[in-house]
Amino acid sequence: MGRGRFITFEGGEGVGKTTQIQIARDTLERAGIEVVVTREPGGTPMAEAIRELLLAPRDEPVHQLTELLLMFAARAQHVHGKIIPALEAGQWVLCDRFTDATYAYQGGGRGVPRQRIELLEQLVQGDMRPDHVILLDAPVATGMARARARSVPDRFEQEQLAFFQRIRDCYLQRAQNDPLRYHVVDASRSLDEVSQQIADLVGDVVRNLTG
Amino acid sequence: MGRGRFITFEGGEGVGKTTQIQIARDTLERAGIEVVVTREPGGTPMAEAIRELLLAPRDEPVHQLTELLLMFAARAQHVHGKIIPALEAGQWVLCDRFTDATYAYQGGGRGVPRQRIELLEQLVQGDMRPDHVILLDAPVATGMARARARSVPDRFEQEQLAFFQRIRDCYLQRAQNDPLRYHVVDASRSLDEVSQQIADLVGDVVRNLTG
Repeated sequence: MGRGRFITFEGGEGVGKTTQIQIARDTLERAGIEVVVTREPGGTPMAEAIRELLLAPRDEPVHQLTELLLMFAARAQHVHGKIIPALEAGQWVLCDRFTDATYAYQGGGRGVPRQRIELLEQLVQGDMRPDHVILLDAPVATGMARARARSVPDRFEQEQLAFFQRIRDCYLQRAQNDPLRYHVVDASRSLDEVSQQIADLVGDVVRNLTG
Repeated sequence: MGRGRFITFEGGEGVGKTTQIQIARDTLERAGIEVVVTREPGGTPMAEAIRELLLAPRDEPVHQLTELLLMFAARAQHVHGKIIPALEAGQWVLCDRFTDATYAYQGGGRGVPRQRIELLEQLVQGDMRPDHVILLDAPVATGMARARARSVPDRFEQEQLAFFQRIRDCYLQRAQNDPLRYHVVDASRSLDEVSQQIADLVGDVVRNLTG
């Protein structure tokens, strides 16, 4: 049994990450692979407590650096306490958002200089990066309409359309820079079409490792 | 009215920081100076919430990097949301522990490489450093006996004597490297003697600025 693979699911609001992670899990489990599904920020009790601090609406303005450091504090706990141990035990880890989301939301969205994110990524992760990043991409208006139908907007979702456009642009730019590791999926199509592509994609990853 | 001065109070457990900060505040207020007393980790509602996360006993082992990043997340919020605005308004800020405590506890105590702390200090504070650091120094056994008499030990206080010895050594080393900014006060003497020295010290700082 080798080391497991680390696959992250990225994308803006309402692109269907939760559903597609389930499709990927089912595909892997049918191939006999043990799967851990997790999410960021969060994934361990302490990291989830940090997530609550981050997402709670509050009167006090939250400084950009505070937000960035809390994100990476939760990530440090998650990576070292859960993701790496699972991978070393041969399990595959499917994660709802990871460091690409920090580049997209804090970097692209809020204007945090990329160098600051790179510095913390290196500090927390060393050379550890996702083996595959599945980017569920849809026009901003499409995703937001779906997200709004689902739940009360949290602090991040209250931001404007321009903010989400910068996030989408950042994700697409990162995918373009590293096409072997990033897989862009058009999430504006029907659920069946998107699910089929995810199952095919994940099936390909498994076959490339075992074939 | 010029920019205020930033004075931090450092030292191990039970050295009397709380009492001596009150002495310093009284001395400054008698000189007509507006004073803000604060503490780390904490100092704003969000930073205090991060403090609670840090200090709460928990089953999940807290990774060294998680602890370090939470410390600096709280510090970012405190420095940019409270300390710098107060200094710019001409107030003097007296702070119960600051970044020296991170070097002493996480660095000296827990073995976090100093370079990691320096990297985060630079990220969060830029060139901002305390104008004066008052180090209340006492043998470890003296301080611990006092601290134990006071309250139930928290997660940090449960650590062993050797840990506290490394903390004391780190504080003293930092003071030795920068004798103009650090003031080492022998906190094993009587309360009256220590209080008199603090009042004199703070009085000197005021006179050097106004004389």
